This record gives sequence, C-alpha cells and structure tokens, in this order.
Amino acid sequence: MGNRGSEFRIPEAAIRRLPVYLRVLEELAEDGVDVVSSAELAARVGFTPEQIRKDLAYFGAFGTRGVGYDPALLGLKIKRILGLTHEVPVALVGAGNLGTALARHNLTRHKEVRISAIFDRDWDKVGKSIGGVEILPLEDMEKEIRAQGIKMAIIAVPPGEAQAVADRLMDAGVEAILNFSPAKLQARPGTYIQNIDLMTELQALAYYTTLRTAAEG
Amino acid sequence: MGNRGSEFRIPEAAIRRLPVYLRVLEELAEDGVDVVSSAELAARVGFTPEQIRKDLAYFGAFGTRGVGYDPALLGLKIKRILGLTHEVPVALVGAGNLGTALARHNLTRHKEVRISAIFDRDWDKVGKSIGGVEILPLEDMEKEIRAQGIKMAIIAVPPGEAQAVADRLMDAGVEAILNFSPAKLQARPGTYIQNIDLMTELQALAYYTTLRTAAEG
Repeated sequence: MGNRGSEFRIPEAAIRRLPVYLRVLEELAEDGVDVVSSAELAARVGFTPEQIRKDLAYFGAFGTRGVGYDPALLGLKIKRILGLTHEVPVALVGAGNLGTALARHNLTRHKEVRISAIFDRDWDKVGKSIGGVEILPLEDMEKEIRAQGIKMAIIAVPPGEAQAVADRLMDAGVEAILNFSPAKLQARPGTYIQNIDLMTELQALAYYTTLRTAAEG
Repeated sequence: MGNRGSEFRIPEAAIRRLPVYLRVLEELAEDGVDVVSSAELAARVGFTPEQIRKDLAYFGAFGTRGVGYDPALLGLKIKRILGLTHEVPVALVGAGNLGTALARHNLTRHKEVRISAIFDRDWDKVGKSIGGVEILPLEDMEKEIRAQGIKMAIIAVPPGEAQAVADRLMDAGVEAILNFSPAKLQARPGTYIQNIDLMTELQALAYYTTLRTAAEG
C-alpha cells in the first residue's frame, strides 16, 4: 500500500476507461487477433490514439512502437491493474427494483466481479434469494462484510438513506462504492465513491433522431 | 435531413461524451463561472484537452483561442447539437425491476428527456402507473408511439424478446434505442441502438481497493 497515495493521482476517468479497453481487447483476443494497432484500438473504443496511449502510460508502456498491442497480453495487464485477476466479491445494499435488476444482471455477465452479499432493511425481503444469494437483514451488514472480506459495494437504496449506508459500509472496511441513488455521497480519505447516472446515455441518444433536425428547422 | 449521412460519420463515442461535457458545463454555469479554459474543462471531465477540442470541432469551433469556453453558451450549443432544447418523449418497453427503476429515476432528473409511455406484456401490470405514466399493453405500442410521435425508446425486457421489441419499435418510427437487455441487438440503416452494460463501472471500482495490491503481493 506504500504507493497508494501516488496512484490516486491517476485521473478517475482514465481508470474508468480501462474496462472499456478491456472489453474490446477481450473481443479481439477471442477472435484470434494477435496484434492491434493503436489506431485500430482507438477506432474500436472511440477515443483518440493519444488518449489511449496517455491512459496506458500511467501504468507503464505496453505497446511495441510501430507494431501495436497484443490484445490478450494487454487485456491481462489491464485486469492486473484493476485487480480483476481473481473473483472480487461485492456487497449490494438495497434489493428494490434497481438492486434486484443489478443482481440478476450480474449473474449473466462479468465473472470477475460477483455480488456475494445482498442486504435490505425490509424484513419481507430478508431470507429470499436473488440468483442464489440470500437477502440478509441490514443489521447484519457489517458482520457479513467483515466475514467475507468485502471491499466493494453497490448502493441502491432511496437517496435519503444512501449516505448513512455509505458511512456504515466504510466503517465495515468497504473501500470503493458504486452509488446508484440520486444522492451525491461523501467519501472519506482513502475511499472512493462513484455516482452513476443511468440517464446520461439517454441524452446522447437524442442526437440520432430526426427530432434534432426538426428542432433546427 | 440532407446532411444526415455525413453526420453519422461522427464517432459514436464523441456523441456519448457530449452529455458528460454538458453536465459539467451546466454545473459551472450554475456556479456563475463565465469562462473555463480548455485545460480546466478537461480536468473536470477527465479527458485530454485535445480530445475535447477534437469532439467539439466536429460541430464547428466553439472556444475563443487563448481564452476558453463560456460554459452557458457551450452548454446551450451542445443541447442544440443533441436536440435537447425541447423536451424529448421516450418510450419504455418492459416494466420489470429495471424498467420500473429507470422510470422512477427519470422523474428525479433530466427534464430534457422524459419517459412518456410505458409498455409491458404482463396484463397484471397494465393499467398501473409509474410516476404518473400508465403502463399500456404491448399490443398498443405501435399505435401509442405513432400518436405521440416518439422517436426514442428504452428496452428493458428479457434478452430473448429484445430483438422482436426493437424491430417493432423501428417499424413504428423509433430511430434511437437504449438497450439494457444483455442481448446484442441489430439496428437497421438510419437507426441507432446503444447497448448498455450496467456492470462496466463495477470493474473500474476494483482499482480503488486494497484487493488489487493484495493480489499483486
């Protein structure tokens, strides 16, 4: 953990782009592609070659100048950077509509990151399962998180409860949180909270309709 | 629509970054900021200044060289590019866990893009409302979409039904679709389908935990 302070200076956005690169690299590797140029990779992920080179340079130089990247090798390196070479257990707090959808969704993809504990304050939900994972009472959250050694959590509770849940998670040793509630949450030093807005993509979508051109006319 | 063909050559990823720029610009404008440098904007959104300049250059030059951008003005221009200067009606297909969560979420944010029609094949759900929008039977989908002039839709149905729903939406005049089902959907010429993976962000999150450093050791 000695170099953790310096690593935190790598821009969040660069870290968030790594899974995007990873997905494309894994697709290329599955298709048997041995080498991909910086320009080809850029076209596939939709960033400039400079952006990709800059992002990767934070972690050392990975390509061979004038040749390109080995998709399988670069994918593995990105997995190592992200800490995804082993299955990572994740806690989900809130088994409402969104939480249930996320837990079901998780089962169909992404073997690296696995929801392994679900908590809800509603005793009608406690004891039921989503995809084989039992919903536990919110009271047991800290105990279970410590028992499983969980360091990552997803918050899918109403906005008014989200900060209190985040505080309890951080008390129990959780270091990184994905927040799907509309509340903007405060992280503590050494912890990380990413707020997710499901509707940002919807705004970009309008570009692809004739509503846009009609509005211009 | 005469230049639509050429506009389609603008990279998807550039279009998808515009709402990210827009959110930051609107925050700056709300804070009373009159001018933001390319470097400051880059730091806030997490892309290189070159990436931002390249993205904006597709639509014309917006900044004043050596001065920067006016957040309010650039925000308005991005809204115009995206077609978000008027409220855009959106159809939601699938009122299961994810669909319900998306419809509720939409009510709390984003006045520009509004879910104005919800469809489900389950007759137990038909007639109920989410946030004041009544759930209609799937049979009425084409008729309602045409009546409202809807051009955008969200698919939140099981993967096996998603392509059939997408085909019906495109038949009814929908031009852009956000697909939350795990199925990869085929768009027709002149239409656009964006597949969303809710868990990509979760992979990036692992970076911010000590699990990563533990795995290295």
